[in-house]
Amino acid sequence: MLRFHFTALFASKASPYPLSVSVSRAIRNPTRVRSQMASFSSSSSSKLLFRQLFEKESSTYTYLLADTSHPDKPALLIDPVDRTVDRDLSLIEQLGLKLVYAMNTHVHADHVTGTGLIKSKVPGVKSVISKASGATADLYVEPGDKVHVGDLFLEVRATPGHTKGCVTYVTGDAPDQPQPRMAFTGDTLLIRGCGRTDFQGGSSEQLYKSIHTQICTLPKSTLIYPAHDYRGFTVSTVGEEMQHNPRLSKDEEAFKNIMENLNLPYPKMIDIAMPANMVCGIQTSPKQAESL
Amino acid sequence: MLRFHFTALFASKASPYPLSVSVSRAIRNPTRVRSQMASFSSSSSSKLLFRQLFEKESSTYTYLLADTSHPDKPALLIDPVDRTVDRDLSLIEQLGLKLVYAMNTHVHADHVTGTGLIKSKVPGVKSVISKASGATADLYVEPGDKVHVGDLFLEVRATPGHTKGCVTYVTGDAPDQPQPRMAFTGDTLLIRGCGRTDFQGGSSEQLYKSIHTQICTLPKSTLIYPAHDYRGFTVSTVGEEMQHNPRLSKDEEAFKNIMENLNLPYPKMIDIAMPANMVCGIQTSPKQAESL
Repeated sequence: MLRFHFTALFASKASPYPLSVSVSRAIRNPTRVRSQMASFSSSSSSKLLFRQLFEKESSTYTYLLADTSHPDKPALLIDPVDRTVDRDLSLIEQLGLKLVYAMNTHVHADHVTGTGLIKSKVPGVKSVISKASGATADLYVEPGDKVHVGDLFLEVRATPGHTKGCVTYVTGDAPDQPQPRMAFTGDTLLIRGCGRTDFQGGSSEQLYKSIHTQICTLPKSTLIYPAHDYRGFTVSTVGEEMQHNPRLSKDEEAFKNIMENLNLPYPKMIDIAMPANMVCGIQTSPKQAESL
Repeated sequence: MLRFHFTALFASKASPYPLSVSVSRAIRNPTRVRSQMASFSSSSSSKLLFRQLFEKESSTYTYLLADTSHPDKPALLIDPVDRTVDRDLSLIEQLGLKLVYAMNTHVHADHVTGTGLIKSKVPGVKSVISKASGATADLYVEPGDKVHVGDLFLEVRATPGHTKGCVTYVTGDAPDQPQPRMAFTGDTLLIRGCGRTDFQGGSSEQLYKSIHTQICTLPKSTLIYPAHDYRGFTVSTVGEEMQHNPRLSKDEEAFKNIMENLNLPYPKMIDIAMPANMVCGIQTSPKQAESL
């Protein structure tokens, strides 16, 4: 193996890491080390196609998961946003996927869900939300349910606290499922933060319990994919959040105290988003309302 | 295996995919299928810690790669942004990594690189850029060079066209390196687009050649991680771009014609960013200039 360190290339600027870190001009016959399947920051599976998509205005992440090993390539979207529906559907079409479910982790207050628009554009897609949310959808999930796309599945965990109907979707606990596991936490657990608890049936006590019993009990390598990030983080892990999330290292009393004193402004989109999201993103038009 | 389809749960709303796609209340003894290591949208390695970080104002992606199997956990950043340096360094500290290189794919015109600020905050970090960029840095890379952090390495590919000094960093082609490979393309290849060619020594002819000979020749599963995305995409693949990037399906003449008629506005940050980035993000202060 030919390896020239920076010292060879840049005589006056020797690398402080001559053995472990170097720039080489060429490596011939690199040592063949058997690759092991594990990763700290991405999940791998022969069948999973996974995409994280960002909506800039509300800083919302939408997640696309599909089983590409299945002939139909069935797919689902988690937390789609109305204004990025065309982007998402175009990607799904280009990738040759068949969208089956448009799911929400909860009734969002900061953006209008894309599920209603998706249903109007792609016949057959079913909207999915938790029964506890009280919202209208085609299909309701409850704790312990499993949502399948092909041979992939998501477990449903009830994680109330930000809203009473919040759920976390977690990829399956089986060897043929993506490793490490992936948790789509909605607003329950954010990277270095968590959702507010001061409206929509929120409860800091419930949120504390949800995070600690339903998320922190997952393997530490489990990837955390939240519904939002406002600082440009895309992913974290259960272990990382347990160690570095300033709200997770607190006991219940301290946590409740933090949550009850955030003094956050009233969400600017809530009066538009909530009514729309309670009926899957499509509000009843005046004409329809008359005929009811 | 107990599996209750939506038909059982929601009698009036039968799933159109009763076999391939279903929600079940419980799966006991799931079929044990040996997991295979391949993925369409993430890369896996036992040693790689990988994070994609986003700077919202300039829609820039910064990438963190580290070898966590090495005692020092050496790390590098690709395309850091000045305004998110504190976020990046805080994350690096929390993850227990040792930042070794702060690298750029090219001299950016739309934001000030974070490399200068990083160097002032973390002694020992070396800034890295291509020799062809003409910019000042601690270390210069040339085509064929390999940049190592621990046992991981990035290959340097010259991909001029957006600027004359653009390079693409590609994870190593060896079994102990992340699979699929990952290409950090800077502004050379964007998701469904490419960088402009009308300033900074840009050339549509060169860009066409760079993309087709240096990127499209990589395995189709290679993950494309660009320096920017303006529509919320986070990743693509070589195969996907070859098929769906509207500028890649064109022949050279058509490509040149597109690039020469984009009529884009003058980059608003260029007059600040370029001089700063030519000297690694730290401009010479008037006092320093006097003493030269």
